[in-house]
Amino acid sequence: MQTPSQPRRARLADGREILYFDDAGSAVGPPPADPRALPDREPPAELRWDRLVEEWVIVAGHRQARTYLPAASECPLCPSRDGRHSEIPADDYDVVVFENRFPSLPAASPGATPRGRCDVVVYSSDHDASFSGLSEERLRTIGAAWAQRTAELSVEPGVASVFVFENRGVEIGVTLHHPHGQIYAYPFVPPRLERMLNAARAHADGCLGCALLADELADGDRVVAATDHAVAYVPEAARWPFELHVVPRRHVPDLAALDDAERGRLVSLEADMLGRLDRLFGVPAPYMAGWLQAPVGDGRDLVHLRLQIASPRRAADKLKYLAGSESLAGAWINDIRPEEAAARLRDAGS
Amino acid sequence: MQTPSQPRRARLADGREILYFDDAGSAVGPPPADPRALPDREPPAELRWDRLVEEWVIVAGHRQARTYLPAASECPLCPSRDGRHSEIPADDYDVVVFENRFPSLPAASPGATPRGRCDVVVYSSDHDASFSGLSEERLRTIGAAWAQRTAELSVEPGVASVFVFENRGVEIGVTLHHPHGQIYAYPFVPPRLERMLNAARAHADGCLGCALLADELADGDRVVAATDHAVAYVPEAARWPFELHVVPRRHVPDLAALDDAERGRLVSLEADMLGRLDRLFGVPAPYMAGWLQAPVGDGRDLVHLRLQIASPRRAADKLKYLAGSESLAGAWINDIRPEEAAARLRDAGS
Repeated sequence: MQTPSQPRRARLADGREILYFDDAGSAVGPPPADPRALPDREPPAELRWDRLVEEWVIVAGHRQARTYLPAASECPLCPSRDGRHSEIPADDYDVVVFENRFPSLPAASPGATPRGRCDVVVYSSDHDASFSGLSEERLRTIGAAWAQRTAELSVEPGVASVFVFENRGVEIGVTLHHPHGQIYAYPFVPPRLERMLNAARAHADGCLGCALLADELADGDRVVAATDHAVAYVPEAARWPFELHVVPRRHVPDLAALDDAERGRLVSLEADMLGRLDRLFGVPAPYMAGWLQAPVGDGRDLVHLRLQIASPRRAADKLKYLAGSESLAGAWINDIRPEEAAARLRDAGS
Repeated sequence: MQTPSQPRRARLADGREILYFDDAGSAVGPPPADPRALPDREPPAELRWDRLVEEWVIVAGHRQARTYLPAASECPLCPSRDGRHSEIPADDYDVVVFENRFPSLPAASPGATPRGRCDVVVYSSDHDASFSGLSEERLRTIGAAWAQRTAELSVEPGVASVFVFENRGVEIGVTLHHPHGQIYAYPFVPPRLERMLNAARAHADGCLGCALLADELADGDRVVAATDHAVAYVPEAARWPFELHVVPRRHVPDLAALDDAERGRLVSLEADMLGRLDRLFGVPAPYMAGWLQAPVGDGRDLVHLRLQIASPRRAADKLKYLAGSESLAGAWINDIRPEEAAARLRDAGS
């Protein structure tokens, strides 16, 4: 048995990499080879510089053809069984990471410098599982996989920033229901992280993330849960009806900088928060959950690791939409006071 | 008869201002007083400073109670007729502007400095009209109303930026179907406009907007329509499946700086582009259309007036969603190449 941070590696039929991360004590066997005949890989995406606001935009024309809400029997993330071949050749697995067949980023091409990478992270072989219901053991394996990918992708040539995230729910456009997340290794520092860096630079007195955390703890009104290692709170200027930031107390740049025990408890706190979102309205919440990690290069010391969770559901039957003010002017309007959101999330503990 | 730029002014029962802009040669009569007994106005919204990225966020808790997809017979923007009283006391009107009952911005309060204002702009008394189908005469009246509001709000104490926009379609969260737009007089420069200002400052050689326009005309691949006065194009780094920028050739800061004839033709070009969006998939397109105008104070000379139109529809049955990469990291992924979008929009001319 291998340790979680040492995955078993293989290649899919079209050359994409696949990595298997096993739970401690896992019974899953070694993965077989991919027997499929796959078409050539998709043409790479393209980066364009938006001169109007000085930001990178990704153009990924081929993604229009990506798999869209397949029937459960056609799920590309389920194990390969009974003669049906999915993206994962194994008939069982714990956690699997593989390169996305429809990547959003300019990918490595033969002889060229890799410029980015899009990984899919499958959380479970159970099509109907959800992150918040996974075992502590599995959450530790997922955390270890995230840390391993963060460390490995951070030293790839051309990678500037590693973003680990999950989108869940058709309400925010999820095209596959099987529980999974993604990892984008961007070849640039994404714009919101860039603004976090600028704010951190302008903050004269130590780490901005540490200061924000200390202020939220001192105030207390928006804290949802606090452990010895980490704190979950609704930020004072939350943008989403239900938005949570989960921040380790220790100043670390990314998931790879945590030890296994710290990381396990942090991921467990994430699962706790996601369960609360589901209990708010008694139905599975659509959400985005993303780890804002320090960039690989310049400014690495300035960013304090932070998980941001955002749900657009503002009532049982209503969603928050990003319309003109948010999308065109960049001015966000939140219909729920952060203090009220925090109180409701505290009450939604299991 | 008054000229379009000189509205007739009145007050609604709770003190909110209402302005009537008439088409040239209009037959509508003078508006009656508002006979309703209305509750006190809503508590003001609140501005919060997001220290993590140094941006203002608006918290408007009372808006949870706002009117939500009423039946056509209960429409608050239809004329008041047959004993039913809407937000507009008149039994007919051309274009009406009034203060939103559920404003998203901290409003004027007695004795305090106004800090922002949210206007509703009703385009027609016809509940089923759409912007792209309005008469040239009506489009001129709307343009005149936008210009009058921009000029008047720009000199209000505390106003930093006037944003004229329309959201259309349940797909982007529109809660009233009656054809209307909005005007937000922000007490701050909204974040995206701030980034436009920074980019314009960094552009050493004259106006950035003029330079972008010249480059798009020289390239030509993404130009959808060009008149003597204005150009409509898909920007090189478009973020939305179908995104259009409509830019006057003359360097002007805002709608108030155009003469009536120029403005009429510019608004007419907007209606042309919105009609093309509807024809792309043969169904009414959800869209946002917003006029990015120069701020009132610092940087006023740097911004070249620009209309941005964005539709999230990427196929007849598919929408673009802003999920983890866009919403949390700020990195946009566009699934349609801007050159392809421009070609399809050229083909969708009437």
